[in-house]
Amino acid sequence: MRLVALGTIALDSVETPFGKVRDVLGGSVTYFSLASRFFSKCGVLGVVGVDFPKEHLKMLESHGIDLSGVEISEGKTFKWEGYYEYDMNHAHTVRTELNVLASFKPKIPKGYKGCDFLFLANTDPEIQFDVLDKIRPKHVICDTMNFWIQHKKEKVGEVFGRCDMIIINEGEARQYCNTPNLIKAGRELLKNGTKRVIIKKGEHGALYFSENCFFSSPAFPLENLKDPTGAGDSFAGGTVGYLAGNGTMDDGSIKKAMVYGSVIASYVVEDFSIEGLKTLSKERIDERYGKFKEIVAFEHEY
Amino acid sequence: MRLVALGTIALDSVETPFGKVRDVLGGSVTYFSLASRFFSKCGVLGVVGVDFPKEHLKMLESHGIDLSGVEISEGKTFKWEGYYEYDMNHAHTVRTELNVLASFKPKIPKGYKGCDFLFLANTDPEIQFDVLDKIRPKHVICDTMNFWIQHKKEKVGEVFGRCDMIIINEGEARQYCNTPNLIKAGRELLKNGTKRVIIKKGEHGALYFSENCFFSSPAFPLENLKDPTGAGDSFAGGTVGYLAGNGTMDDGSIKKAMVYGSVIASYVVEDFSIEGLKTLSKERIDERYGKFKEIVAFEHEY
Repeated sequence: MRLVALGTIALDSVETPFGKVRDVLGGSVTYFSLASRFFSKCGVLGVVGVDFPKEHLKMLESHGIDLSGVEISEGKTFKWEGYYEYDMNHAHTVRTELNVLASFKPKIPKGYKGCDFLFLANTDPEIQFDVLDKIRPKHVICDTMNFWIQHKKEKVGEVFGRCDMIIINEGEARQYCNTPNLIKAGRELLKNGTKRVIIKKGEHGALYFSENCFFSSPAFPLENLKDPTGAGDSFAGGTVGYLAGNGTMDDGSIKKAMVYGSVIASYVVEDFSIEGLKTLSKERIDERYGKFKEIVAFEHEY
Repeated sequence: MRLVALGTIALDSVETPFGKVRDVLGGSVTYFSLASRFFSKCGVLGVVGVDFPKEHLKMLESHGIDLSGVEISEGKTFKWEGYYEYDMNHAHTVRTELNVLASFKPKIPKGYKGCDFLFLANTDPEIQFDVLDKIRPKHVICDTMNFWIQHKKEKVGEVFGRCDMIIINEGEARQYCNTPNLIKAGRELLKNGTKRVIIKKGEHGALYFSENCFFSSPAFPLENLKDPTGAGDSFAGGTVGYLAGNGTMDDGSIKKAMVYGSVIASYVVEDFSIEGLKTLSKERIDERYGKFKEIVAFEHEY
């Protein structure tokens, strides 16, 4: 397999100033895989309960996603309920039901071992470490979240140290490095053995740091955000998917990959759940990719 | 005169996590004019008290700034005292002493009338309107602040409506347009008769809106910010100075001008007061301007 991703498959209930949905398809690896599919086949490692609607699995498969690593377990699917206020920069969690996720021990399909690219979405760093050890991919990229930085910082650091790249959001970067300055945080993270760092800044875009490169990508300008859920995982999916598709991991490819990630995320937030991803096409991705060039150009005219 | 700027000349007392200064040179038009001087001669409209150190006036003149519009008035100079906390994104005002500013009625030197570019820094919109009416420049650009939006929104709108461009910060844009979405705010502001809008976002850069153009400029990546005071006015000074120097007001020039503004602001925040501006050179500006190209390029290699 070219690309494998470990993460959650969820039933989300979300309220924003623009609407409300109940028990819709969500989860980090759902967004990630649907976003990556434009560039690479993606194998999924995750778990759902017996209550999980079969049509979701069919939909994912019909979009070219490999589900041989998805376990259907006795019990209920992982559920997240949250809301966004008017500024939509922060998700407020109302309830998290781990359900089948609580006892999830990923079983690795044979075809996933030694894959080219492995993405470890936010989850317990012990599980991330274990999966990484079992799969032994060529390249590994990971995410984490505030909860794990707070409770298992050392283990998070161990995972980071084995990653080719980490993709985290600005709050996590500030928390992990204990500084409000994102430039300092990005460079600090490079000292821990990770060669490449992407810091996601939501409406302000993303920053990339490596030994020889600094890149600042804006976000695509949107007037009508409906639901920011999944934006970060879709950004990661587009970014890592592009790299896996090309089999490259150099600064130049990563910069392009980030713009693809930003473009795909911009379509996700314009609708609820994965609706914006389901119907997305390569043509529409390329259209906004072209606009990105105009948005940042101040010398060359495109 | 090619460029005239109306604003404050102040004695600032500032504390940040990196140090503390008392009664140092500050004020919007001080930063603006010192930043604009690399591209254009700038005439200043402002007022100081009899307590104002003569060496500051000499320093400004020796940097090529025209002070024929600066009045020395009976009384004390305008004073601002404030501090920044660890994240340095927000200035906390401890005290403002208006002093001679309270009764300031700008007298316009003959040579300022009909100037090419007029910049109206944040001040009472009644005064902005009056100065605009008396000078009748070819192009006018203005700033404002939350206080005036709250108390004289209609008058602020009248000034905006007569401007070729407004340069305000993200908080002011959100407040004026009553939306958390900056893209919506930028486009909303274009509906009021203003042809061009720049929204300053501090560490996240700046956005530009016109009928046919959207441009997103990052901030220069800095690990060592010491004092953010004057960053916004220096950005405006670099931007408007470049435009005045070139005598142009098209999208292409404005994008370059914003990058120059960002570069100059990046030097300002690395030191207290106007120290970073006093010793700045065109060579060092060009050096960071060149780096900006690399920071945003994801297709063309520079």
